[in-house]
Parts: sequence; C-alpha cells; structure tokens
Amino acid sequence: MEGVDHLAHERSKTQFDVDEMKIVWAGSRHAFEVSDRMARLVASDPAFRKDNRVMLSRKELFKNTLRKAAHAWKLIIELRLSEEEAGKMRSFVDEPAYTDLHWGMFIPAIKGQGTEEQQQKWLPLAYKMQIIGCYAQTELGHGSNVQGLETTATFDPMTDEFVIHSPTLTSSKWWPGGLGKVSTHAVVYARLIADGEQHGVHGFIVQLRSLDDHMPLPGITVGDIGMKFGSGAYNTMDNGVLRFDHVRIPRNQMLMRVMQVTREGKCVQSYVPRQLIYGTMVYVRQTIVADASSALSRAVCIATRYSAVRRQFGSQDGGLETQVIDYKTQQSRLFPLLASAYAFRFVGEWLKWLYTDVTQRLQANDFSTLPEAHACTAGLKSLTTSATADAIEECRKLCGGHGYLSASGLPELFAVYIPACTYEGDNVVLLLQVARFLMKTVSQLGSGKKPVGTTAYMARAEDLLQCQCSVKEVEDWLKPSVILEAFEARALRMCVARAQSLNQFPNPEEGFAELSADLVEAAIAHCQYIVVSKFIEKLKQDIPGKGVKEQLQILCNIYALNLLHKHVGDFLSTGCITPKQASLANDQLRSLYSQLRRNAIALVDAFNYTDHYLGSVLGRYDGNVYPKLYEEAWKDPLNDSVVPDGYHEYVRPMLKQQLRNARL
Amino acid sequence: MEGVDHLAHERSKTQFDVDEMKIVWAGSRHAFEVSDRMARLVASDPAFRKDNRVMLSRKELFKNTLRKAAHAWKLIIELRLSEEEAGKMRSFVDEPAYTDLHWGMFIPAIKGQGTEEQQQKWLPLAYKMQIIGCYAQTELGHGSNVQGLETTATFDPMTDEFVIHSPTLTSSKWWPGGLGKVSTHAVVYARLIADGEQHGVHGFIVQLRSLDDHMPLPGITVGDIGMKFGSGAYNTMDNGVLRFDHVRIPRNQMLMRVMQVTREGKCVQSYVPRQLIYGTMVYVRQTIVADASSALSRAVCIATRYSAVRRQFGSQDGGLETQVIDYKTQQSRLFPLLASAYAFRFVGEWLKWLYTDVTQRLQANDFSTLPEAHACTAGLKSLTTSATADAIEECRKLCGGHGYLSASGLPELFAVYIPACTYEGDNVVLLLQVARFLMKTVSQLGSGKKPVGTTAYMARAEDLLQCQCSVKEVEDWLKPSVILEAFEARALRMCVARAQSLNQFPNPEEGFAELSADLVEAAIAHCQYIVVSKFIEKLKQDIPGKGVKEQLQILCNIYALNLLHKHVGDFLSTGCITPKQASLANDQLRSLYSQLRRNAIALVDAFNYTDHYLGSVLGRYDGNVYPKLYEEAWKDPLNDSVVPDGYHEYVRPMLKQQLRNARL
Repeated sequence: MEGVDHLAHERSKTQFDVDEMKIVWAGSRHAFEVSDRMARLVASDPAFRKDNRVMLSRKELFKNTLRKAAHAWKLIIELRLSEEEAGKMRSFVDEPAYTDLHWGMFIPAIKGQGTEEQQQKWLPLAYKMQIIGCYAQTELGHGSNVQGLETTATFDPMTDEFVIHSPTLTSSKWWPGGLGKVSTHAVVYARLIADGEQHGVHGFIVQLRSLDDHMPLPGITVGDIGMKFGSGAYNTMDNGVLRFDHVRIPRNQMLMRVMQVTREGKCVQSYVPRQLIYGTMVYVRQTIVADASSALSRAVCIATRYSAVRRQFGSQDGGLETQVIDYKTQQSRLFPLLASAYAFRFVGEWLKWLYTDVTQRLQANDFSTLPEAHACTAGLKSLTTSATADAIEECRKLCGGHGYLSASGLPELFAVYIPACTYEGDNVVLLLQVARFLMKTVSQLGSGKKPVGTTAYMARAEDLLQCQCSVKEVEDWLKPSVILEAFEARALRMCVARAQSLNQFPNPEEGFAELSADLVEAAIAHCQYIVVSKFIEKLKQDIPGKGVKEQLQILCNIYALNLLHKHVGDFLSTGCITPKQASLANDQLRSLYSQLRRNAIALVDAFNYTDHYLGSVLGRYDGNVYPKLYEEAWKDPLNDSVVPDGYHEYVRPMLKQQLRNARL
Repeated sequence: MEGVDHLAHERSKTQFDVDEMKIVWAGSRHAFEVSDRMARLVASDPAFRKDNRVMLSRKELFKNTLRKAAHAWKLIIELRLSEEEAGKMRSFVDEPAYTDLHWGMFIPAIKGQGTEEQQQKWLPLAYKMQIIGCYAQTELGHGSNVQGLETTATFDPMTDEFVIHSPTLTSSKWWPGGLGKVSTHAVVYARLIADGEQHGVHGFIVQLRSLDDHMPLPGITVGDIGMKFGSGAYNTMDNGVLRFDHVRIPRNQMLMRVMQVTREGKCVQSYVPRQLIYGTMVYVRQTIVADASSALSRAVCIATRYSAVRRQFGSQDGGLETQVIDYKTQQSRLFPLLASAYAFRFVGEWLKWLYTDVTQRLQANDFSTLPEAHACTAGLKSLTTSATADAIEECRKLCGGHGYLSASGLPELFAVYIPACTYEGDNVVLLLQVARFLMKTVSQLGSGKKPVGTTAYMARAEDLLQCQCSVKEVEDWLKPSVILEAFEARALRMCVARAQSLNQFPNPEEGFAELSADLVEAAIAHCQYIVVSKFIEKLKQDIPGKGVKEQLQILCNIYALNLLHKHVGDFLSTGCITPKQASLANDQLRSLYSQLRRNAIALVDAFNYTDHYLGSVLGRYDGNVYPKLYEEAWKDPLNDSVVPDGYHEYVRPMLKQQLRNARL
C-alpha cells in the first residue's frame, strides 16, 4: 500500500488554496521557501534519523546528539548556509542540544551585555565554535528570584581579578543546558562584591574546561543533573550542575556594557540605559511564542490526521464505521486547538513587529511603551506556553490508546515542550507581573495618563463598564466588533473589580498577595483579549488565495467563541453577556465546527510539516497508520528474541514451581 | 544532616491527631495495619529498589521487572501472605507487571465468565502460577467498540474445535498487558461464528506459548508493541500484539457461563443473567477510583512537602525567603488537589459499599438499581481518573523546574498513570453513557418512575428548578445543605436544559450526536455532585480523633467551593447562584486555604507513604531535598566519565576547526 494516499478523499473536499495558506502560515513567501528547503534537507539526510531516539540509553542518546550537532555544523559550513537557514535547519533537526544555548543564550548575552571590546574578543571565537558557551544563571536554590542568586564574584584589587565562588550547596548552578558535558565557557551570573559592598547580580565570562583535553579547570566541579521527563525528549541535553571553589578570572571578563568595575574596584554605571535588557526579553519571549505555535500545530496535525483515519462505532451492518473526527465530542476538543495554533502564529508574528518597534524606540531613547510591551510579552509567553502544553496532552488523548505509544510522537513532544512553561519566567510569576501592570494601569485611568498599546482599550473604561452585548441571534456572534467588545469588557471589568478589592486592603502589598489567585485570572482575561484582537486585526489585512481568508475567519471565530465558552463564568459574573447570549455563542460554535470539518485536513497540511519532523506514525501524511504501527512494533529491542531475557531465571522457575531454589 | 527532620517545625504546628487520620485514610484499623506492614516490607527489601528505573534500557528494565515479580511471588509463598496482603504488597512494589493482568483480569475473567467446570480446571493452575494469563480484548483497529472486534472464533463441528483467526491486520490483538513476552495463556475475545452465523463477541481460553520452552505455538505470532510514554513507567509492561493463523482450541475453552455452544454447534443461552457482567464492571471501576486517590495523593504529598521546603522571594534583608506554600497562587492550585485526594478516597470507599449492594441484589435477582449503579461507576471512573491525570501534572508544575527532573518522581508517576483515562472505557465515551442515562432519567421524571441511588435528587426536580440559593455572607457557604443544594440544582438544571434541547431534534440520535459535547458537561456536573455528596455524607459519620473531623470538614468545603469556582459559568447560567454569591464563595475559599495551610504537611503525612513508595527526592519525609538532589545527579550514567563519550569524535574536531576531516 506504499504510495497510496489514504487521506486523498479528505483532501479532495478542500475549499481553499492550500499553497497560499502555507505562505500565510510561514509568514511570507521567502520564509516558506527557506523553511521548506531546510525541512527537506534534514528529512532526506539519514544522519538526522530520530525514530530510534526513545529506545537509546542516556549515553547512546547523548553521543548521538553530539554527532548530529557536529553533522549539522558541517553542513552549515559546507553549504554556506545563512544565519536564517542555519537556525531553521537546527529547528528541523528537532533535538535539544548544547548548540541551542550557545547560539540562543551565550552569544546573545555577550552581544547584549558585553562592551564593544568584549564583543570583538569573544564573538568571533563563538561564531566559529572555537569555544562553546552556555548561560549559567539558575541555581539549585534559586530560579525565579534572580536577585536571590548566591554565587559570588568578589573583586580582588591585588591581582585585578574576580574570584568566582559557590558559598553554599544551594548556590550550585543547576539546570543550564549545555553545561553538564560540553561547554568550554559560560556566562555566569553572580553577586558582584567590590570594595566590600554588594552591587547586584552581573554576568561574567568564565572558562570551565580546558580547550586541550576538555577537563574541568582547577576549582571547577561540573556534571550532568540527571534524567528528565520522558524518554528521548530533553535527555539529549546536558543540563548541568556547576560549583566554583574560588575560581579566578581577569577583571575584563565581567560583562560591562551597563556597569563597569574599574582597576581600583569602583563600580561605574555606563551611559547605556538599563532598559536595554527589556528589549532582549521581548525578543526572547517573541521566539517562545513562535515556538508555541510550532509545537501546538505539530500536535494538532497528528491528532487531526489520525482522527480522520481512525473509525469507531456507528456501523450497524458491518460497513465502515464513523471517522472519529465526525464526532462532536472530538471536534469540540480538537478544532479549538487547531484554531489556537493559527491564533498563536499570528500573535507571534505581531510580536516580531512589536520587538522591532521597541528596538527603534529604545534607540531613540523613548522608553514610554516599554512597560506595556514588557507586560504584554510576559503575558503572551505565559498564555501560549501553558495552552500549548495542555493542548499537546489533549491531542494525545484525542488519539485514544495509540496516542500513548511513543510511535505516536506525542509523548516525546509533550515531554520536550513542557519546560517552556517554566524557563524564561515561570508562567504564574509572569501573570502576576502582568496583573501588577494592569492594576497600575487601572489606578491611573482617571489621571489623564493614557493606556498604550494592548491596554489602549482601557481608556474606554466608562463605556466598557456599562455596555450591553447586542447579540440577539446566533449569527450576531460572527461580528468581530461584538466579539471584541465582549473580550474587552470582560477583561476591563475583571481588572476594575480586582482593583476595587485591592483598595479595601490597608496594605497594598498584603492585598496583592491575598488576592493573587484572582489577579492571575484577570491577567489571563487580558492576555486572551490580546490574542483575539490580533487575530481579528490579521483578518483586516489583504490575504490572497482562494478561500484562505474564509477559513481563517472560521478559525478566528472558533478561537474566540471557544474561549468565551470555557470562561463563560467570567463573562456572566461581570454581566458582559447574558446566559441566553452564552447559549447562542455555544450554538454558533457547533455550527462553526461543522463548517471547519470539511477543511480540517487541508488546514493541517498547510503547516507543511514533513513526516520526519512530525515523527509520528499516527500523523503520517498518507494516513497509512495501521501497517506502519505494526511494522514499528517489531523494532523494539524486546522483540530481538522471541523468548525474553530473564525467562530462564525468573519466569520458568515460577511456572515449574521451582522458585524456592531460584537465585533472584 | 542525615536524621534531621527539616519539616519538624511544620509538623509541630499540627492541630489534629495524625495517627487517627491515617486510619480514616486507610479505611479501617485493619486496612492501615496491613498496608503499613506491607509498605515497610517492600521498602526495606533492596530487591525492590526502583530509583534506577528511568536509566535502564528497555531490555534491562523489563528483565528487572521479571526479577521483581518472581521475588514478590517467592515472598508471598514464603511468608504465606493472604490475598489481601499479597495485593497490597504488589501495589507497593509500584511497577506495572504481567502479574497485574494475571491476577486482575485473567483470573477474574475465568471466574466471571467460566462455568463451574472451567473454573475448577483453570483456576488452580492460575492461582499457583503454573500458567500465566492475560486478557486479549482490544485490537489494532478496535478499542472502545468491543462489538466491532474482528478476530473470529469459528466452530468446526467436524473436530469439535474453535478456529481462532485474525482475518485482517487491524484485527491483530494490540495492547494487552503481559501478552508481549510472558503470558502462556490468554482470554481472547472473538466473534463467535457457529452454524454459519455470527453470535456476538465471547471469551476463549487460548494457550499462546509452550510450557516447555516458552516458544509461541504454531499459528501464533506474538510480540511487544514497543515503547510507551516516559522512561521507566509503563515500559516495564510487555503490552503485546498477537495474530492468529487458524489456531484450533477445544470447544470447552470457550467461556460458557452465559452462553454455551453445544457439540452440534448450537448456541444456547444459560440461565445465568447477562447482567452479571455489569457487576464485574462495577468492581473493576471501583478499584480504579481507589487507585486514582492513591496516585493523586502521592503527587500531592510530593508537591506539598516540597512547597514547604522551597523558598523563593519575599526576603529584603538576606534573611529566609518565603516558603512557596505560603503564596496564595500556590495554595489555590495545591490545596484543592489535596482536598480531591480525600474526596476521591471517600467516594471510592462508598463505591466498595455499592459493589456489595449490587452483588447482593444480583444474587436476589434484583436488577432495578443496576443501570444507575453502572452509570454512576462509569461517571466516577471518568471523573476521578481525568482529574488525577491533570492533577499529577499540576503538582509537577507546582514543583517548578525541579519537578521536571526524574528524581522528583512526578514525570514517571504521570506517565504511568495516564492510561487510566483510556483503559476500561475511554473517559469521554463513559461520560456519554452517563449522559444517556441521565437523559432517560429526566424523560421519565413525570412518569412516576422514581429515580434511584445517586439520581434520587432528581425526584425533587420541581423544587430544584426554582430554588434560590440562600447565601448572604461568606459563612453561609460553610453549610452543607447550601452546598449540596447548589450542586443538585446545577446538575438538574443542566440535565433538564439538555433534555429540552434534545427534544427539538426530530431524530433523537441525531440530536444526541449534535449536542454530545454539551451532554458531557451535564454528565460531569452530575458526577461532581456525587463526589461532593459522598464527602458530605462521610462527615455525618462519627469520626474519632482529636481535630480529625474538623480538618476533613475544611477539605470538604475546599473541594466543593473550588469546583464551584472553576465551573461558576454552570452555576450562573442556570441561575443557581448570583454573581455576588459566587464572589462570596471565592472569599470563603481563600479563608479556607488559610485555615488548611497550618495542617497541610500533617494531612499528607496521614497518607502514610514510605519514601520508597513515593520515589521522590522532592517529597522526602525529612524534607532534606537539596543535598539529596545533588547526590542523585552524580548517579547519571553521563557522569561516569568527566569527558563524555563522543567528545573526541564530535566536539573536539569542531573546537579545533577540523570538522571537514572528521567522520560523522
């Protein structure tokens, strides 16, 4: 049956131009072209095989990752790939590796926090991978609270050096990727002590291992922190532990763009504004949102295709059973996730624009939009990563029992994705930051200070506090203005109610602590409004291609109305809509699912994922699931022999009632 | 620091008698004593070590499980353990193994579906483990739809045999635990064909492997289906694939308690009522609910202890930071899960009673309560397993980054638990069954047929449709009658509204399909009501022990009010409560969290779990987390050598710019 497209019938029903949708998904024709070329390059190279990953022991797995990273680097050099192409290629190799941290954290840290001189010294070495670096911030005892880091960097004016030291067990650096076994260097974050005084946490370039024989340098204890969630998954990464015993580095290895330590040990603030650091945060979080849409769309692609292949129940006469994608219970769980994938894609695209905007303003010394941009990216990072983690697991469940097999690809996708909810800011901590910003915004509403950016709608507080949803029949819920106003009113009213509750506390900080769980809910309402509004904005653009915009319109409505349904308590308790209107929204939602059904397969085809990248028997493009599942099973090492290892020692004596004599 | 109790301060604050609570949790003094003794037996035996499990290759892992199963069996014989003790011991070994299916499915199937004669022949062999059996029902193409199974058992009157055959690829048996590598026998479910006609799906005892050399018998293809979610976890189990090529078995190996095939090939219904099968289902699902409370309580125990150890933020002057358990955001996520663990424990206890009740009635030919009991257990199985799966992952997130380490125990607990959402009835399919029963119950409300058991409240439909919640201040939400009525009214009104919507469809089946997602929501509302009501009933009992009942009262209120908060949309849209009352419930919930805080550690101590059973560095009884995490890390195979395997081939050539010459 090789070569037969079992989903051809599904594809023949498509009502839009899939090739044009691929370009919308990729962001531009250029982006599509690069992405498509790199995906094929990786998929066609047997060196990047990954179907055996879950069966490898930790050591084999790790060695295999080292091999792939070297192979990728060789290709990058030989094919003279651009930075964009190289980045895309690495993402399609689809395996966490030390190179992620080298390119994604070590180099950006030096670029962002190093002086011109430091950049000129270190970047060429790093670009050529003559040194390999990681980003050593978190410690055994400290993650979210960066200011609580315990590692010290004490300036010694006698020798013009810093002494890097781990004073306690909990000060051990813990988690940095690439640290455990590979990195030769690290940007280490430590409390600066100079002149007997503390000067906050700063970054220091520290060499960890000899460039000759890779042995740790004197005073340095370094290793891997052990197995993590799942098989394969993030265990390809050498997340590490690192301790310093009075390790000395030259003064010029402190990253001094923002603050300098002089030869005499004086700390001098530079002319560079500290806010620059927020620009970097906006950048990193924007990439995380883009990654969320990638991970989510992979899971959705697998679950959607398999839901069209899988049939269960519904046949009385021995004929074909019903495709599970035709059940409303399946649709009501799956289609909102498909809609979310597109929604996150577009909000990620918008965040790219936001980063450019913020950067330009920073260069012009305009810091006015920074707090709002910072809150907005924090919130969207939290919202999209949490939703994606849950969605991957939901997609696994939507694949029934077979979703539990590693061959479905979903267990590993889940295990490898979920750290995104924790790194670069724990998702709950981030929402509290958003809430704090929103409470400040609300408190200033009367003051004449106009809310900017994604909080601009709050300027219409008076209207939004008293507006009445105009929906009278199901079709009314298709009007973007109606949806938008409902989300604006809900978010605003929740924020205002929380602000009023806060005001009843004599001590604002105590009030914030006491009400924090409720404040998180308000922050989520605001962030959901942002995603909905950016999807609606996207649809105001000119989008070419037959039927493309119509499909996106359906997805947008599903995204919004499903959120409304899930959080209907918010909308009702704030009086934004009535129970009757909620019920109409639900009716509309069901109707939208029916409309989407016909194009579901084409909408996941538009992600343009290769079977290699998907890494899922259930999600195969050709839908040829069962024969391939059967084939895969025999590859398990347990099937190397018909009678398993251990039978003679542990099973036969039991069957033969000879256990008493057996050596166990 | 060995021997120091880092949580002693927490324990000193306890306001109730923990030893008495342990007995409440266990169900009785006897149950506590057995459980405690077996837990210690397993924990103290190095043969049951499991901390290295996630690092083993599939083959090593599986062989290790065979060893443990044999060792356990040896102990059971040597110590002459009772069935109860043996069962407890196996559960504390805490590793899925073929014995689970042998004792839990193969033997019960023969007991439930075999004739007296068949039981006398097969059970003694099985009890002594002279044969090992599994339960071969699901196929590659069929899980939920048992009637759609494709395997055939054709009676051949010439030889007085059945011919067992797999006519298609999708008819391959797929998933049965213990099948892949160990079982010598199986109860195989197949379509009975006799006299040229189909007679439905029945069970057949089929020998799979030689008792001499363990080789598969002629016509039988059998193997393992490959890796599943996670490392360690369910990969200790040989879930299998099985194909038959015209395998012949004697006629008397069809399980004939309910229907017999005569020598002439006639099918004869026996006097035994088919409903007996539902009795077994009630039994199995009751054990699943009990298991849910065990898995959930383990996760909660880990997260609660670690939340008291972990400190982050909140210190201005270098002093101790705030324990994360003191943050309201942490409490509002963690404490409802702690409450759920107790809630599920008590509803599980009640299900045990229900099973006894159903059994007695069946014996007296009283089938009147069976449909309700069946719906109720289906719903509770679905509710508790879904909630537990989500809760384990939530507990992992509550442990921050370190929860992602295998050493936290939570990744493996999640991976090993989640199949419970799928086996013995997919959770969504089960809720649809509940919904169907509820719709029937509602439709009969006017007919004089009184709803029984957990649906008895529906008899008060008229009241419940118009009652008004009496809550005026926060304290009112502590009244059991108020809570109960709110949950009754919500469930009833949702059911009635769905029934009315259904009535608008000319074809009821089409209506049921179209509205199925909404029907699932009504079923959930009903099931949540059951759990709340059984918790409240439990508290009407006499519960000895200082402060024990007070703590359970707090947990009960947290369980109910948190559900109300999470599903407030249901309560508001059905007019059961007002927004103001919802807000008061939320205020009460915060106050309950504060009350629970002080006893949180003692409440998880009451589960009486050994450190061995918990299998978590984060959840250690003594709270000595950081030194042990540090110690664990070095045990990873990657740390066997300072310079990793692969450095010379794949890292050094890169650093030295000699990659072009390297062999990759």
